[in-house]
Amino acid sequence: MSVQTAPAPTPATASATPEALLESLRELLGERLSTSAAVREQHGKDVSFHEGFPPDAVAFAHSTEEVQAIVRLCASHKTPIVPFGTGTSLEGHIAALKGGVCIDLSQMNSVLQVNDEDLDCRVQAGVTRKQLNEYLRETGLFFPIDPGADASLGGMAATRASGTNAVRYGTMRENVLGLTVVLADGRVIKTGGRARKSAAGYDLTRLFVGSEGTLGVITEIQLRLYGIPEAMSAAVCSFDTLEGAVNTVILTIQTGVPVARIELIDEVQMDAINRYSKFDYPVKPTLFFEFHGTEASVREQSETVAALAEELGGSNFVWSTLPEERSKLWQARHDGYWAAKALKPGAGGWATDVCVPISRLAECILETKKDIQASNLLAPIVGHVGDGNFHLTYLIDPDDPDELKRASAANDRMVMRAIGMGGTCTGEHGIGYGKIGFLQAEHGEAVSVMRTIKQALDPDGLMNPGKVLPA
Amino acid sequence: MSVQTAPAPTPATASATPEALLESLRELLGERLSTSAAVREQHGKDVSFHEGFPPDAVAFAHSTEEVQAIVRLCASHKTPIVPFGTGTSLEGHIAALKGGVCIDLSQMNSVLQVNDEDLDCRVQAGVTRKQLNEYLRETGLFFPIDPGADASLGGMAATRASGTNAVRYGTMRENVLGLTVVLADGRVIKTGGRARKSAAGYDLTRLFVGSEGTLGVITEIQLRLYGIPEAMSAAVCSFDTLEGAVNTVILTIQTGVPVARIELIDEVQMDAINRYSKFDYPVKPTLFFEFHGTEASVREQSETVAALAEELGGSNFVWSTLPEERSKLWQARHDGYWAAKALKPGAGGWATDVCVPISRLAECILETKKDIQASNLLAPIVGHVGDGNFHLTYLIDPDDPDELKRASAANDRMVMRAIGMGGTCTGEHGIGYGKIGFLQAEHGEAVSVMRTIKQALDPDGLMNPGKVLPA
Repeated sequence: MSVQTAPAPTPATASATPEALLESLRELLGERLSTSAAVREQHGKDVSFHEGFPPDAVAFAHSTEEVQAIVRLCASHKTPIVPFGTGTSLEGHIAALKGGVCIDLSQMNSVLQVNDEDLDCRVQAGVTRKQLNEYLRETGLFFPIDPGADASLGGMAATRASGTNAVRYGTMRENVLGLTVVLADGRVIKTGGRARKSAAGYDLTRLFVGSEGTLGVITEIQLRLYGIPEAMSAAVCSFDTLEGAVNTVILTIQTGVPVARIELIDEVQMDAINRYSKFDYPVKPTLFFEFHGTEASVREQSETVAALAEELGGSNFVWSTLPEERSKLWQARHDGYWAAKALKPGAGGWATDVCVPISRLAECILETKKDIQASNLLAPIVGHVGDGNFHLTYLIDPDDPDELKRASAANDRMVMRAIGMGGTCTGEHGIGYGKIGFLQAEHGEAVSVMRTIKQALDPDGLMNPGKVLPA
Repeated sequence: MSVQTAPAPTPATASATPEALLESLRELLGERLSTSAAVREQHGKDVSFHEGFPPDAVAFAHSTEEVQAIVRLCASHKTPIVPFGTGTSLEGHIAALKGGVCIDLSQMNSVLQVNDEDLDCRVQAGVTRKQLNEYLRETGLFFPIDPGADASLGGMAATRASGTNAVRYGTMRENVLGLTVVLADGRVIKTGGRARKSAAGYDLTRLFVGSEGTLGVITEIQLRLYGIPEAMSAAVCSFDTLEGAVNTVILTIQTGVPVARIELIDEVQMDAINRYSKFDYPVKPTLFFEFHGTEASVREQSETVAALAEELGGSNFVWSTLPEERSKLWQARHDGYWAAKALKPGAGGWATDVCVPISRLAECILETKKDIQASNLLAPIVGHVGDGNFHLTYLIDPDDPDELKRASAANDRMVMRAIGMGGTCTGEHGIGYGKIGFLQAEHGEAVSVMRTIKQALDPDGLMNPGKVLPA
């Protein structure tokens, strides 16, 4: 099976957005409709290596009602619609492949409601995760999903984002209680509710979470919140072998240690982090841990994992509850991308993303590393290993087209390897247009059901066309 | 708004299943096609008070391929299909309202795969939860979702079941990783996969979980498993007021105590349990707790909650890690229905089900209790209060039609009260045909999207007709 990482998208045509539509949008939004080249460019290109495709216009919405009005106008002209949060997606999600109107939701940034007792809140789609946590600071509550970037919560819901905390707190799938969505025909629906659980009808919330704007525009989100743990500790441990590290993770989870984060850093990435963040950890496969709980429970978790790690060849297990040490460690982890890029000055960074059953993780990573070496590529690895999810950062010389070609081929092989192991072509970045060639390989006949649903809810194919479902 | 708890369903017609279809099914299944009155009766009536409607025939399937063949034959004759697991549903889910063929999956009872390291397994739809846990006994793993009845895992997935453990382990929504489903046209799809998380395409798994057989027949389920905790403790605590009990629950969850179970028993139900299970707890609102973890963590959790409860007026907080005391307590809780029925010999028991944001729980229960009293009804209450979910058991004299009428009216009011508080008409029992009148009140315009999906995936309306979506 031949799969292309980034199939050539149909180029946008200038005619996708008729002047009459722009006129109506200008009437509705005034200066909040922009057709300037700079604004359009910025809205068509995410932070990935994928080619950008600017929309014909960008509409800055302030309310669900405005989004509804914009969608209705676009629908009446059969003009494509691309929702936009912060532009931090990684698979070309916001590229206006067929032109049309980008709806920028970043100005819909109100926290609408916080319910302390129920541990939930309602936000507009443009609120970012950091903004929400800032807002919550006085309440003793927090929202744990942390994909790295300060993404909008609407975008995170739309792409089913997760990150380092997912092993304990789940992903957006588990943490969205309900949504307000504007459909392709302009109808507004509310899905889910505030009850913690419900058996009332089809789970539309989960259908829209991860639908990447192809079924509707998410304008509000009801989210689960959590109490900030009384105590947190962080720990670092080095291993001679990748298997030792992965087996420690497996045993930790089997034992039921409610670990909040377990991150794997391979020796290449560890070297990069040492240089960039001025650490001197051994240049070996390394695990970063975080434990949440009471003082006593955090101590017990740390000690349990230390014992497990030692049994499996881990050395130098060091843990600390000091906030500054924790911060330094996680800052270094979050800077991993920049640390990797510093290994090869001038290189572009391409972050890949697969997820496999954890029993296959060591094998999947080791085969991938062999392939990277054979392809003469540099690609440090980090992984949210509690979930079996890992990322390579390919460091690509922009002046060497063959390097990108080799990386692309190696990525195809890695994705097919992950799917062959019962895993997925994307653990958390989504399909966008970058992974669209793999959906069929992963889901087979089920893709036809996705297509049926898309067709039923968006018969004219106006919602973020060219994303998720292969043409 | 006038809502009927159980709208009169269209009666089945004998002509729904043509003789030619029965002939073909007999050829396929031999003696595993039954048209005997006893078998048909047993398959059309669940364990609720809802009227039963027998199917025209019952097909006992042994494989996904057989289910596919049966569905194709039924589809070619435009004959309705009703999937059946153990018949323990509570809202008339299995009633063959339009006649047709019941597909009994109980003989598809193989555990197909257990992956210790990945904490997951794959089962056929007819495996029951007790059977699975029996099978897992040697592995140190367990499947936590416990709706009380020994339901089939296919049925539990189809109805998005949960139960006492959901506050810690989630519901079927969180614990199904993937499904095999036979669609209305006989196509077989696999949804989800074995990766812990994925951002690849629409979440069809969650769409089928809770769809009650109206979108397809679930034949296999990939499930999350958990390590059996090193230690467990159970605790009981009485309160003078319901508010005290509920506030203890709220504070427990806010504090981040990872409680495994918190059950509320009102004074009426407590009296019933004392009598039935020979306890002598105070006849007051009471909480039953269960804590899972290490020895130390279970001790710490118990002591933390004891302190919180005392602060909020709880008395006699008693906890124990002795297995026999734990078993006795939870046996009593599980026998709650029989204990309630014993309060009024000869009465039928009707279990209701709503779920609200926990901040509204005390108010919702207290208003409901007032209404019960004003309606001169007897209805003990139990609740999975960590989730805001509670059940009344109306004790109905079968010879007094007015009593059922009053209970039905009070139930309508309770459901609308719960919806008005941002809650749901059903926390875990599902819609079936019993709650079908409330879906619109809860979900509004979103119901039209559910209908669009139903229409797209089952254009002839053959899959469990008359359930979930109002006609």
